[in-house]
Amino acid sequence: MLRQSSAVLPIRADRPGLTEFTDKVREFVCESGIQEGLLTIFCRHTSASLVIQENAAPAARRDLEAYFERIAPEDGLYEHDDEGPDDMPAHLRSALTATQLSIPVQSGRPVLGTWQGVFLFEHRRATPEREIVLHLVGE
Amino acid sequence: MLRQSSAVLPIRADRPGLTEFTDKVREFVCESGIQEGLLTIFCRHTSASLVIQENAAPAARRDLEAYFERIAPEDGLYEHDDEGPDDMPAHLRSALTATQLSIPVQSGRPVLGTWQGVFLFEHRRATPEREIVLHLVGE
Amino acid sequence: MLRQSSAVLPIRADRPGLTEFTDKVREFVCESGIQEGLLTIFCRHTSASLVIQENAAPAARRDLEAYFERIAPEDGLYEHDDEGPDDMPAHLRSALTATQLSIPVQSGRPVLGTWQGVFLFEHRRATPEREIVLHLVGE
Repeated sequence: MLRQSSAVLPIRADRPGLTEFTDKVREFVCESGIQEGLLTIFCRHTSASLVIQENAAPAARRDLEAYFERIAPEDGLYEHDDEGPDDMPAHLRSALTATQLSIPVQSGRPVLGTWQGVFLFEHRRATPEREIVLHLVGE
Repeated sequence: MLRQSSAVLPIRADRPGLTEFTDKVREFVCESGIQEGLLTIFCRHTSASLVIQENAAPAARRDLEAYFERIAPEDGLYEHDDEGPDDMPAHLRSALTATQLSIPVQSGRPVLGTWQGVFLFEHRRATPEREIVLHLVGE
Repeated sequence: MLRQSSAVLPIRADRPGLTEFTDKVREFVCESGIQEGLLTIFCRHTSASLVIQENAAPAARRDLEAYFERIAPEDGLYEHDDEGPDDMPAHLRSALTATQLSIPVQSGRPVLGTWQGVFLFEHRRATPEREIVLHLVGE
């Protein structure tokens, strides 16, 4: 019989950029006792986002961060800067990546590939605590 | 016992760019009577897309629209222009944003953050009526 | 009564760029016998991704491929190039598109629009075999 489980996961990044939280996601799935199902990860913010990326090479992470700094730069002549120069780039980088990720679960584990990690992509320098909602349906 | 609900939501934007329809999404969830679950919003088009963004500041919306006009411009020397100069940029802007969004539901409401709104991102100037499919599984 | 079905779909692209596999997705849904539900397609890689795009015009496909070659180029002065010059652009193009797509199912078919196809976006020249996980919940 299918059932659901959900949780709110608070995450504070140490610095802007990518912060991996794959372990916390796996732990939530494991504790739910659900073996087969669908896991959804939802970011409740518009200036931070989610990305599944290579979790082995730190250089790949730095390149990805630098890339988004280039394509959605702080000096982009934006109209909206109520909260400072990192405000509007944060919205743009969020729109270009993901607010939500869904991952099938098999044998009690998300089916992430060998090199895939789940990352919070923090776009603000102030790095406030972020709320990530986890939802799992399955049996 | 888990159950499902679904609906087709027709939306016509007044103009190209972002059109919020968060209220219609909340209404669908409310009318379903489902308290806890997973809501999916799916756009049945390749020249319009979905984005969750800041719903408070109009300037942020204008900046986001202007940004996508810059990074996927109409004068991009495309091979494909069967339907005019806004045809190919529409496909590119769709690929860069989302065709689908899934949002957990708690206490009968999508768990959107305080500043998060759900927007149709219309990329064509003709702004045809668009079909958004809503699906909810839960109990 | 809701139930689940899942499968692993191996796909090898003939060449880098877009390879449509909509038919295989429809076949999986059809064989499951599930009439109403939610289909999730998940790519277990960080150098290949998923995109829903126009499936009629080959020129649109070529333009989309050329666009991503321009905005995340091979000569991007990346720090990370362990696996060659197409390594880091592959991660960037993956981050800009989708690792996962969820599509509602009605009357035994994914509710794709008339012109929507599901594509693997292969970013590596070596085009290794890719694992796509399909998950369907419904009844």
